[in-house]
Amino acid sequence: MERTSPLLKQSMLPASIKQVRIHDTFWSPRQLGVIETVVPYQWDALNDNIPDAEPSHTIENFRLAAKEADGEYYGMVFQDSDLGKWLETVGFVLSVTQDPQLVQIADEVIDLLERAQQPDGYLNTYYTVKEPGKRWTNLRDNHELYCAGHLMEAAVSYYEATGKTKFLDIMSRYADYIAEVFGKEEGQKRGYDGHPEIELALVKLAHATGNKAYMELSKFFVDERGQQPHFFDLEAQERIEAGDLSRDKPNQKKRIYDYFQAHLPVRQQQTAEGHSVRAVYLYSAMADLAAEYSDEELMNACKELWRDTVHRKMYVTGGIGSSAYEERFTIPFDLPNDRAYTETCAAIGLMFWGHRMLQIEKDRQYADVIELALFNGVLSGISLDGKSYFYVNPLEVWPQAADFRNDMNSVKVTRQPWFGCACCPPNIARLLASLGQYIYSHQDDDQEIYVHQYIGSTLDATLSGKQVRLSQQTNYPWDGQVTIEVTSAEQIEFTVAVRIPSWCKQAEIRVNNVPANASNHENGYVKLRREWQTGDRIELNLDMPVEHIHAHPQLRANAGKVALQRGPVIYCLEEEDNGANLQDITIPSDARFHVQFAEHLLGGVSILTGIGTRSVYPSGDDQLLYTTQGFCRENVPLTAIPYFAWSNRSRGEMTVWMRQH
Amino acid sequence: MERTSPLLKQSMLPASIKQVRIHDTFWSPRQLGVIETVVPYQWDALNDNIPDAEPSHTIENFRLAAKEADGEYYGMVFQDSDLGKWLETVGFVLSVTQDPQLVQIADEVIDLLERAQQPDGYLNTYYTVKEPGKRWTNLRDNHELYCAGHLMEAAVSYYEATGKTKFLDIMSRYADYIAEVFGKEEGQKRGYDGHPEIELALVKLAHATGNKAYMELSKFFVDERGQQPHFFDLEAQERIEAGDLSRDKPNQKKRIYDYFQAHLPVRQQQTAEGHSVRAVYLYSAMADLAAEYSDEELMNACKELWRDTVHRKMYVTGGIGSSAYEERFTIPFDLPNDRAYTETCAAIGLMFWGHRMLQIEKDRQYADVIELALFNGVLSGISLDGKSYFYVNPLEVWPQAADFRNDMNSVKVTRQPWFGCACCPPNIARLLASLGQYIYSHQDDDQEIYVHQYIGSTLDATLSGKQVRLSQQTNYPWDGQVTIEVTSAEQIEFTVAVRIPSWCKQAEIRVNNVPANASNHENGYVKLRREWQTGDRIELNLDMPVEHIHAHPQLRANAGKVALQRGPVIYCLEEEDNGANLQDITIPSDARFHVQFAEHLLGGVSILTGIGTRSVYPSGDDQLLYTTQGFCRENVPLTAIPYFAWSNRSRGEMTVWMRQH
Repeated sequence: MERTSPLLKQSMLPASIKQVRIHDTFWSPRQLGVIETVVPYQWDALNDNIPDAEPSHTIENFRLAAKEADGEYYGMVFQDSDLGKWLETVGFVLSVTQDPQLVQIADEVIDLLERAQQPDGYLNTYYTVKEPGKRWTNLRDNHELYCAGHLMEAAVSYYEATGKTKFLDIMSRYADYIAEVFGKEEGQKRGYDGHPEIELALVKLAHATGNKAYMELSKFFVDERGQQPHFFDLEAQERIEAGDLSRDKPNQKKRIYDYFQAHLPVRQQQTAEGHSVRAVYLYSAMADLAAEYSDEELMNACKELWRDTVHRKMYVTGGIGSSAYEERFTIPFDLPNDRAYTETCAAIGLMFWGHRMLQIEKDRQYADVIELALFNGVLSGISLDGKSYFYVNPLEVWPQAADFRNDMNSVKVTRQPWFGCACCPPNIARLLASLGQYIYSHQDDDQEIYVHQYIGSTLDATLSGKQVRLSQQTNYPWDGQVTIEVTSAEQIEFTVAVRIPSWCKQAEIRVNNVPANASNHENGYVKLRREWQTGDRIELNLDMPVEHIHAHPQLRANAGKVALQRGPVIYCLEEEDNGANLQDITIPSDARFHVQFAEHLLGGVSILTGIGTRSVYPSGDDQLLYTTQGFCRENVPLTAIPYFAWSNRSRGEMTVWMRQH
Repeated sequence: MERTSPLLKQSMLPASIKQVRIHDTFWSPRQLGVIETVVPYQWDALNDNIPDAEPSHTIENFRLAAKEADGEYYGMVFQDSDLGKWLETVGFVLSVTQDPQLVQIADEVIDLLERAQQPDGYLNTYYTVKEPGKRWTNLRDNHELYCAGHLMEAAVSYYEATGKTKFLDIMSRYADYIAEVFGKEEGQKRGYDGHPEIELALVKLAHATGNKAYMELSKFFVDERGQQPHFFDLEAQERIEAGDLSRDKPNQKKRIYDYFQAHLPVRQQQTAEGHSVRAVYLYSAMADLAAEYSDEELMNACKELWRDTVHRKMYVTGGIGSSAYEERFTIPFDLPNDRAYTETCAAIGLMFWGHRMLQIEKDRQYADVIELALFNGVLSGISLDGKSYFYVNPLEVWPQAADFRNDMNSVKVTRQPWFGCACCPPNIARLLASLGQYIYSHQDDDQEIYVHQYIGSTLDATLSGKQVRLSQQTNYPWDGQVTIEVTSAEQIEFTVAVRIPSWCKQAEIRVNNVPANASNHENGYVKLRREWQTGDRIELNLDMPVEHIHAHPQLRANAGKVALQRGPVIYCLEEEDNGANLQDITIPSDARFHVQFAEHLLGGVSILTGIGTRSVYPSGDDQLLYTTQGFCRENVPLTAIPYFAWSNRSRGEMTVWMRQH
């Protein structure tokens, strides 16, 4: 589609996964883990071939819908989305690697999808197999459009990787049918899904197919959200009248729909509310549409929501959603460390949203949050061996209390094997497989290439029809040295805009060994414009001291405490290194930590060592619980490890925030 | 009964409620509130005469059991116990005051009880009306013996107040019947109640009636608890075989019975576990029986349990039970302030237990805990006007978070009207009505009178057949001046043992203006032995500086924090006096607080004023949530009020523990 919107015209376009090859000591093994381990494992899971695991039944459900098997539907109402996420990941994998066998598997399952598709284009196994005739009767709870969205994202991913159109055609037929069912015309439903997802998927589908109707449909869903009379009330009333009381009671109090981000029309929403994954999926679509339609009002809502999220409701790790109940945002500054929910998927969704905001606004604040979430709240969700996962990423754990207390029962002290979960593992897989798209953007009108993230990689871009290659080398996040080399068949004038992360207070930039002014940045990006030619070399030196991070005084849980950050990495103390009762430890306000790369620890990480204090107390049984005597304190050595690497050794206590004395 | 047990012979006997008349500026109005307001209100509630309140149906259930009404049973399975608690309170009230009308009401309801009693002595409305034929089929869950226990306590209380024996006879018949059903003989049940209560009640009944069989029955229940094969398993199996699956499933995993303190035989229990009210009721009976039977093994278990409770699992307010889930003890040092459960009834039960331990051991540690619980964790349960109640007594409240977060949903920010609750309000009522029994004990063999609590009161005691009166005057807890005057018809040699509370580091004692050696104490009691005569006067001066209380370093929730205590009173900060965000406040380690009696505040309390610090920060919307800059701090005036008086003004934040800098 043409980029007619003024906001879209001034936006950047992210470099596609195909344009970017990652070769990074930190990320490449993790991406490879997804390709070699997670994708095959997950395929076995979808086919119920994992011994001792709960059956997924996902593929079997599609066979049932295609009338190629006998039996009953099994699984969650949103089971189809698991195949969507897997196929989307497959597409990303095929964008960065060749794998004919994987293509064959994917093609076969896409054929199955086609056979499961109904003549009118409808494609949902739950309603085809289990509740035929009840399509679109419970948008609020049953994830019907959500599943469609994940399959659409998969179709786009697979098309972009392989150029094959069958899956895209299947999902276009489904989208065409959905566009008939939903709309403002007589006989159409003015509804939307309880779980946002299709909105951002339709934007992708519109771009992949060039069909603006899908963009319009996305806009319709976004604009209808939260309007009165409330669609969720109306459909609940219809269910009640039809005698279907499985989800509703006749005299049920009207729910406050903030859980679904449907409490207000989206343009009136100024604070991040409700289920945090749903929220950031919605806000991602809102940002997409703001750019597409040059919709300043929608963009302003996005900015307000972003501000509320990152300045009021985000953990220092980039995690969001502080309440296990409804997996939701709560009130400003309510960010307890031991009862953080901080679902891995929510941090990933925050990256999705920030990625879109960044393209429109060209402001490092978005890239900073993407980086923060990526290295901390997202990465903590997967074990170093790639085989187990956290849904919930607490910032403080006392295992014995977490085991015992019901008010902490969402906190797991060790990661769980992936097949026990349905959403976070595939979400991490698709994120890692598609990591390339977060590194660079280009703005063709101004002949600009933005470097957002420091990840060893090669970008092949085309500027005014000319091929340009940027090769980035770095040992990030363990040091701040980044080298970017240019390769170009001919000399060409353009801008390389490099991000100075907000955590970096002292940056040096050299171009071909000549210093550039690193403080001359525009929204955090230093713009290096010149006639570039092969062999030109940009060197960044981002100073990475160990920083003491203080929380806003309203953030009660962190009063008197600091967190340690070095570069983009948040650190934590673990019991394995520092003994139990980590809350007793204090560090001085001028504490200096020594940085040391521990090659053989936790897959190779920089650790921080320093001196703190601990109480001296006898270990007898009769000590008073309360005394008027303070306890003496003694110096103790401390070792902090990256937060993302916690819980990869022994089970034990962990804390991100440490008391300062 | 004769005091034949060696342990019992060396024990003290608490002065009875009838022997003690309270005339205290602090306590008398509270006791009067119970007599004048709570008792009539509760009677109306039992009779469903409170407009807009949920019906209690308690009296109606007894009418149904007596076949004097038509209808169906309504209420909890333990509804009968509400009448028991009320009648027990009535007995206490009638011990300290005359009220012919109350006697008449009580006599009439006792007549009804008699008519509701079954020919075999059984007396329980639930099983008589609702599930006839199912007596004793679910001891674990259905509170059958628990209800019996409360009615027995009531019968003893009423008998001791009035000398009338009808109620005592009714409950003796019931006890006789229970003794037929339960026991080790062929055909008897080797069971016990899921909720301990009858055990301590039977001890009282044995003393009131002189029937040692009741003591034996109590001992049987206590000794059977936790034995294998497990009674709760056996009765569950019987229910399953009888086809009654309402509470059990055939393949149900065997429960760990620590919730019921039935995980081990009681003599093997060394740590306080499970539902905290049940626990302290059981431990109270264990202490009773240890003394009665001179059972050192049982006494040692009591001491271990006491140590674990007060040195590992008690809040600084004397509250116990740190988990809302199962209202239970958790693990040592797990005492979160904002998610404290600290049920008012549990703190009251801790007083019951400590009261018994104190008589046996003559050690101030028990009187100290009784005092601590009374002035703090118990008293916080009732509003200053006596009309609303807390079940849950948190030590830190952020109302907005408590409203929003599901993991704090047991915390109420304001007290609830009593009729919404079933257990704590009557428990507070019976405690306040019976407060007299906690003040004095006597040990006749050694001619000793112990003064445990400083409450303005008059004790009329008999020592070797001679009448002695002690008159105590004090302004406690607001100052530590206590005067005790002796009145005696003739000169008599005996000991007055006065307690030096453990919080008091400097005490002065004068007898007839002559200094006595206050540091010469025996387990915290200074023993003043002499020939006492009318006009003799003991003066205590207990120094009451404001103390900074530190928690054990393992108590993670209080790391780096202090609480303020003056005398027996724990203080707190409220938002009303100190603004919001109380967690931001720090006080210096050498902070000095000024004590001031505020006559017109909160019914007249001593408040503490001092200087702390707070962060200085602008109030704009764009402040960063996390920064590398610490925040400046400024001095702010602080006002602390007694913890028991919190939440009597505006709704707002509160904290007991303050950060120290």
